[in-house]
Amino acid sequence: MIGIFDSGIGGLTVAKEIIEQLPYQIIYLGDNARIPYGTKSKTTVLKYSIENTKFLLNQGAKLIVIACHTASSLAEEELKRKFKIPIFGVLKPGIEEALRTTVNKKIGIIGTSSTISSKAHQKLIKTLNPEIEVFSVACPLFVPLVEENWEKRPETKKIARYYLKTLKRKQIDTLILACTHYPILSSVISEVMGKKVKLVDPAKIIPLTLKQFLSNHPEIESSLKKGDSHKFYFSDYPPKIPFAFQKLLSKNYKSLWKKD
Amino acid sequence: MIGIFDSGIGGLTVAKEIIEQLPYQIIYLGDNARIPYGTKSKTTVLKYSIENTKFLLNQGAKLIVIACHTASSLAEEELKRKFKIPIFGVLKPGIEEALRTTVNKKIGIIGTSSTISSKAHQKLIKTLNPEIEVFSVACPLFVPLVEENWEKRPETKKIARYYLKTLKRKQIDTLILACTHYPILSSVISEVMGKKVKLVDPAKIIPLTLKQFLSNHPEIESSLKKGDSHKFYFSDYPPKIPFAFQKLLSKNYKSLWKKD
Repeated sequence: MIGIFDSGIGGLTVAKEIIEQLPYQIIYLGDNARIPYGTKSKTTVLKYSIENTKFLLNQGAKLIVIACHTASSLAEEELKRKFKIPIFGVLKPGIEEALRTTVNKKIGIIGTSSTISSKAHQKLIKTLNPEIEVFSVACPLFVPLVEENWEKRPETKKIARYYLKTLKRKQIDTLILACTHYPILSSVISEVMGKKVKLVDPAKIIPLTLKQFLSNHPEIESSLKKGDSHKFYFSDYPPKIPFAFQKLLSKNYKSLWKKD
Repeated sequence: MIGIFDSGIGGLTVAKEIIEQLPYQIIYLGDNARIPYGTKSKTTVLKYSIENTKFLLNQGAKLIVIACHTASSLAEEELKRKFKIPIFGVLKPGIEEALRTTVNKKIGIIGTSSTISSKAHQKLIKTLNPEIEVFSVACPLFVPLVEENWEKRPETKKIARYYLKTLKRKQIDTLILACTHYPILSSVISEVMGKKVKLVDPAKIIPLTLKQFLSNHPEIESSLKKGDSHKFYFSDYPPKIPFAFQKLLSKNYKSLWKKD
């Protein structure tokens, strides 16, 4: 099985892309008992990421996808050192796509406070192409706005305009949506940034990254079960879970409560 | 010691009132590794509240104050059954003050999604005075707006207007701020609701409740140490903690990291 974890339901967008484009069974863990990760310290995010990875391994995962950008920015390197299985974050695929996309070599990054202050994107972009100019902005209210289903309200547009004004002034031509919730706001972000700015959703790139890896590693590929008996676990089970689950996956899978 | 817990730093407003009005040492636990509580299920909030209470008891607390309105609404009764020491929530003191304040017998409640959907305030008010009309609204974006220090931004006022319009129409004359973060927004809430509506901040009432209880229970009173060697623990320690700590307590106490 392909193991996927996220701080909550946002990573289901990543799960959906993988399910649609690859034939393998997945097991998903949404750690919504401790959501959000984006306001918490590196130590705490790393601790949670290790616990999530162990859970997925115990359930039979043969490779791990970190769907959460905060966990990917703060914990991916440590997880790769600690666990002897293939681990994929959303950081690198998003950056590679942005590098393929940009023409004027000005890339913007938006994410949670912890993701942005980690500077993980800047560091990786600088090693891949030192000519690129990177501009980043934390947008902490975007997650609660999405959780409130406010993607079409005027307050959301006003807040987006405020957050994005620096990036607009810097004339970036490519913007990485470095948080699983942000693609849900892509129409308002696009409206504010203008049509010339290309938005990069790393969730869309992950399946391609996995495909390439698996075609080069048949021993891992053959260890993955095929089929659609996917499993979805959540560490908390508030009343809105089944609704959000349906909305994001748009298919009738069963979600389970992972009790400690 | 008086033990106080909250889901994060918001409960420091309660701690501050207690420190200023009572002579006893306090021990505070902010569970910001798992903040917020207000979007999580009753089962999870209860589990966290039990763990927090045990920690405070192990540290020598002789009575417990639940500074968090979500924990108070969802877990107070269970904690009182489970632990054999005096436990005080913010629910009842706030309600009693609102009942003393209202003239037209129309009381509003604003809080997190979990607090409001628990209907804990309605149930208690109905038992204390069945004549009162209660109107409640969840304001989930208020906490992230405060965490962003956006209390003076126009977006916040626009959002407050949206959330509060039903309560305004119902012509309440008293509004309980049933979340520790909301008093920080009291000027914008007051501006939107109008000067005739009295805001009730339960944090202000808690010291009086404790004083009355302790004067009737000298055996508990004598078990509390006096002095200002207060202890403040946080389950996560992101970079903003010392700043927020100073801002809310406005005194130079030391904060500690409670690692598992």
